[in-house]
Parts: sequence; C-alpha cells; structure tokens
Amino acid sequence: MSCKCIAAMSGGAPLSLHTIERRAVGNKDVKITIKYAGICHSDIHQAREEWGKGLFPMVPGHEIAGEVEAVGKDVTKFKVGDKVGVGCMVDSCRDCSSCKAGDEQYCATGAVMTYNGKSKYKHCEEYNEDGGAPTYGGYSQCVVVDENYICKIPDGMDMAGAAPLLCAGITVYSPMMYFGLKPGMKMAVAGLGGLGAMAVLIGKAMGAEVTVLSRSESKRDEALKELKADNFVITSNEAEVAAASGKFEFILNTISALYEPQLYLGMLAKHGKMVLVGAPAEPMSLQAFQLIPGRKTISGSLIGGIRETQEMLDFCAKHGITCPHELIPADPAKVNEAYERAVKSDVKYRFVIDTSTFA
Amino acid sequence: MSCKCIAAMSGGAPLSLHTIERRAVGNKDVKITIKYAGICHSDIHQAREEWGKGLFPMVPGHEIAGEVEAVGKDVTKFKVGDKVGVGCMVDSCRDCSSCKAGDEQYCATGAVMTYNGKSKYKHCEEYNEDGGAPTYGGYSQCVVVDENYICKIPDGMDMAGAAPLLCAGITVYSPMMYFGLKPGMKMAVAGLGGLGAMAVLIGKAMGAEVTVLSRSESKRDEALKELKADNFVITSNEAEVAAASGKFEFILNTISALYEPQLYLGMLAKHGKMVLVGAPAEPMSLQAFQLIPGRKTISGSLIGGIRETQEMLDFCAKHGITCPHELIPADPAKVNEAYERAVKSDVKYRFVIDTSTFA
Repeated sequence: MSCKCIAAMSGGAPLSLHTIERRAVGNKDVKITIKYAGICHSDIHQAREEWGKGLFPMVPGHEIAGEVEAVGKDVTKFKVGDKVGVGCMVDSCRDCSSCKAGDEQYCATGAVMTYNGKSKYKHCEEYNEDGGAPTYGGYSQCVVVDENYICKIPDGMDMAGAAPLLCAGITVYSPMMYFGLKPGMKMAVAGLGGLGAMAVLIGKAMGAEVTVLSRSESKRDEALKELKADNFVITSNEAEVAAASGKFEFILNTISALYEPQLYLGMLAKHGKMVLVGAPAEPMSLQAFQLIPGRKTISGSLIGGIRETQEMLDFCAKHGITCPHELIPADPAKVNEAYERAVKSDVKYRFVIDTSTFA
Repeated sequence: MSCKCIAAMSGGAPLSLHTIERRAVGNKDVKITIKYAGICHSDIHQAREEWGKGLFPMVPGHEIAGEVEAVGKDVTKFKVGDKVGVGCMVDSCRDCSSCKAGDEQYCATGAVMTYNGKSKYKHCEEYNEDGGAPTYGGYSQCVVVDENYICKIPDGMDMAGAAPLLCAGITVYSPMMYFGLKPGMKMAVAGLGGLGAMAVLIGKAMGAEVTVLSRSESKRDEALKELKADNFVITSNEAEVAAASGKFEFILNTISALYEPQLYLGMLAKHGKMVLVGAPAEPMSLQAFQLIPGRKTISGSLIGGIRETQEMLDFCAKHGITCPHELIPADPAKVNEAYERAVKSDVKYRFVIDTSTFA
C-alpha cells in the first residue's frame, strides 16, 4: 500500500514530499496510522550523510506515535484502535544473547533501524537477495511493523509529547537503570538539548538530585524554572566548577560537540560513573589518571530494548512526563526549517511533526 | 630508633646507603623487622621525580614483608613474631565514607603513602605543624606502622614472593572483585609486566579464561607456559586482533606506555568492562562511538583497601600464588642496577630486596 511521506531524495538534499510503498500486513504485523513523528538530531545527521553513506530516498523518523489500523492474524499484543509507539528499531536477529535478554539494540548481528536500514533478516517478509528491502521512518502516514518491536502508549498520555520518548526518553532512561541511578543520588546532566531535558525530567522522577551542567548562562532559567532541576552549574565558570568538584555520583553526558572529559570527570564523585549518550565526531582526550584515583567510570549507552522502552513509557505516564515540544505540520518546508533551527539548538526541546496534516 | 635504609638523596640521584629514624612504638603501633621489599615501577617514577616533586631523602618501597618485633600496649591484632605485610598506605583520615567502607585508598582527604608522604593526620603521633613527619618506605631494616594498616601474611606463604602482593597483587585483585569478574568469564590481561603476571595468576585462580594481550611475541611462551594463561594475542598482528573482536567480558589493562584504547575496546564484548591500572603519562584518544554501540565501560582502579588486601593475601595463600621474582641483596649498587633493568622490563616479574642483608 502506498502512503505519503517526507523524504530526502539524496544526501543533503532538502526534504520533499514523496510516496512510498509499505508492505502488506503479515501474520505478526501491525499497521499503524502515524499521528506524530519527532525530529531527532540523528535524523539530520543521516539525511545529510554526516554519519556515513545513507540509503536514498530516505524517510527519517524514529520517534513515532500512532494508532493501530490493522493487525495480522497471529498478533496477540495489539488490537485496532490501540495507541502505540515505534522507536529506533523495527527488527533484530531475535536469537543472540542480547536479543534474548531484551537488549535488541545491542543485537550481535545488528538491529534493523526504523529507517536508513534494510530488512536483512530472513524471518522478515521483506527479506530479499539484496539484503532486504529498505526501511522507511516516521515522517509518513503509516508504517507496518512486527508486533514485537512496538510499544503501547499508556492511556491518557499526550501522543505528540509521547513520540520523542521513543528515542530521547529511552536513551536517557536505559543508562539510568542499567548503571544504577538511585533515589537521593546526586546526578548531573551535561547539555540541555532534547536528551538533556528528558534526562532532567526522568532523573527527577527517579528521585535523584539533578544538576544541569551547561556552557550557556541562558539555560539557567530553563533548567531551574521550566524543568525544575535542583541546581545549575555553568561550565565556563571556574568557581562554579570548582565548587562542584567530586560532587556527582552519576553524570549523564548528552553533549555531541567535542569536549574535554576532564572537566566532567573532575566533578564526578569517587566511584562515580559518567555515561555518554552524545557522540562527538572528534576523539576526546582522556588520561588514565583522571579515572584511577577515584575508581571512576566512563561508559556508553545506546537507546534501550523494547521491553525497557515499554517500561520507560509506563514510568513516564505514572509521573506525568512527556517531552516538551513544538508542533509543526507535515509540510517539507516546515520540516526543513525545523532542521535548520534544530542545528542551532533553537527548540525546546523537540520538533514534532503532526503527520495527520499531509497535504 | 635509627635503622639503615637505601635512599635517593635527591630527585634522580642514584640510590645510596642512608640511616633514618623510626618513631617510638605508640600504643596502637607495630614495629616490623623488614625481611623483604619489592621494587615497584612507581618507586622508580617517584625517586626520579617523574610524577612530580618528591620528598627527599626518599626511601622507596611499598611492598613490605616482615616480622613483628614489638607491639604497643593497645595493639590487638598482632603479636611479636607474626609475619606481616605493609602496602602502599600507612594511614588515612579514618572518618570519610571511603575509609569507613574499607576503601582507604580513596580517602577523601588522601591516604598517607608509605613513603614520599607525610603523617598529616592529627591522630598520628608524628603529626606536626609542618603537616607531619615524612614517611619512609620498605628499602630499610624496620618500620613502625599503626596496626590498622598492616596485614597478616598467611602461614606457610613464601615471604619474598608475598612482598609484591602488597601492591601488584592487590592492584589487580581489587578491580576484579569490584567490577565483577566471575568464574568462566573471558578475561584479557593487557601488558605482561609485574601487574600483568599477577593478573594472570589471580584471574586464573578466580576461574576466568585468561588471554594475554601483548605487543611482544617473546611473551607468548611466558604467558602460556610459565604463567599458564589460556590464550595469547599479539596485538601487532591484525588477524589475531580481528579474531578476538568482541571477545572479552573483562580487560585488565596494565600498560603504562601510551596506547590506542580503540584496539582494546574493539576486543571488548558488548557490556564489557576495561579497567585501567596502568597510567600512561600522555593522554589517550577516545571516541564515544567506541563505547556507545556496545554499552562498554572504561574504569580506573587504585590498589585496594586494607581489608581487601588481607582478603587477597588469604586468596593467594589458598591458591598457592606468590609473585615470581628475582631476589637481590640490600646493596644500593644492586638496587640501582635493578632500576635500570626494570625500566627495560628485564625482570620476571619483580625485583625483591632481601633487607636482612644490609651491610
């Protein structure tokens, strides 16, 4: 079946209206009418081929909220009318230790990304000799996904604000759980973009004392008043940084521009952990002496598994958390403009496309 | 009381015979006749002021094995004739959360190092207005230490081979325990000096499958035949490195020369941990992308606490582990020669000074 979408026809080209074919609904498939699609910064990187070669036409979007329109005959988890979400993955090998543990994002042979990927596993009906049909993301009217890669959006949750949780929310929630954030812990969030804002909201809801670390004085009010962070440290102010020396048991670092890890490791408490979810393109400079005397840790973390994404959505619903966002229509000109503004961090905190408004 | 020692009289000067004063035995003190003192690479760094300014005259040595000669009236843990060991620390604040948890090495205000430190805490009888008397290490005939910073060397353990356990042994044992090495895990040891050799022996005794990673083909037989490692990977061989891609759940990195962490992170399994106990002087180049896709971790670790050092000694005794070493007399010329050879890694795996042989 065909559906309208917003696509990049080649790397770096402005997005434009396009039409794609979605597969027929297989026995385990769910067809979703997409209501909202968040714009993640990684959409921009991929559409512009900043992270390597892309598959074109490319339909970005891996923060999808919608409604079930049809289900295959073996689907047990969803029924027509359910509110559902799809995140960064639509398939994985289902057989490796990561998949079996519910950590599909770390699938040994690679999860199938929601867009800019290929349905590369033989168990998928779209598998073919070329390594599988290309996947297309959420900037479109509908999508067909195996039920095991879909989450339920809890009743009453705002659908537009829920969409970004499928990537930004789980990206910050998963490391907090895996690396043991506990109530009462002193946590810092480095960087206050979409990931940072979600980290403040979720960290607070987990009972942590949350400090925002930012280079921009302009973020102070946002952090303290809008997002209700407990503290704010401006990282260009040596006195503020010195006062926070050895303070934080957990730092979630969302910064994707190059930085000196030393700045943050100095604010990490003994036995503290800094988890990176932002990925600067350039290498950073690390000294063993920054880790050894305090038994400190640097780790990375990538989104989260499907079961954990459901857990995150339920947690956010319980705590009344959705992602603050700016809604835009499904108009390529508006999406291109949003890309420009997102690159300049000129959004609080996510653009969300209202995909019911396709012309 | 005065005792003979081997000291550096200034930074970088050859070591020479010297005499120091040890404090009178206080109520909680133990006077130890030193039998053996290991030569740790950090002794060389400090005597040569390669890690910053030192206190001179400097008597190095923090791998001390000896026999109790006298005890203060309030000492409860030791009696005359006991075989005991002293490691890197002889005091700490005793009051911070690290000290209370038995992690004295991470004392919030700094542990007092066995040498090249000062008895800076008021509870020590050697505290003075200048910040405390300087501490002098194990290249000497005797030492006086508070009983809480002394370990018992288990009955029957070879004393010369036990001495290096007090630093090299605990430095590798502590991170294996803290970061969760488990029987059956695939562990790699990067670098095969004194720390690396101890890591192979202790890792094997813990039930791990141990692979040695080394740049030197010449280490293959040592690793596999002498130390009974399970596998050997020569890191300059791309095919061997590729075959080990994603293999190790735990890497203990003992290398203190500059290296590319990417080489080792590539051999780390998903969710794997690399712990640094060697500290290259130069910064290394790290990319977030090397950690994120596999939720990988880099941590540092510093020696271990006193209780854990005792646990390590008991573990080693149970498993028949001591440190392979080369015994040299308490002759400054021999110690200077040992320094030169240690710098060239020309020792299996530690020099130990027989401190009963002072002229």
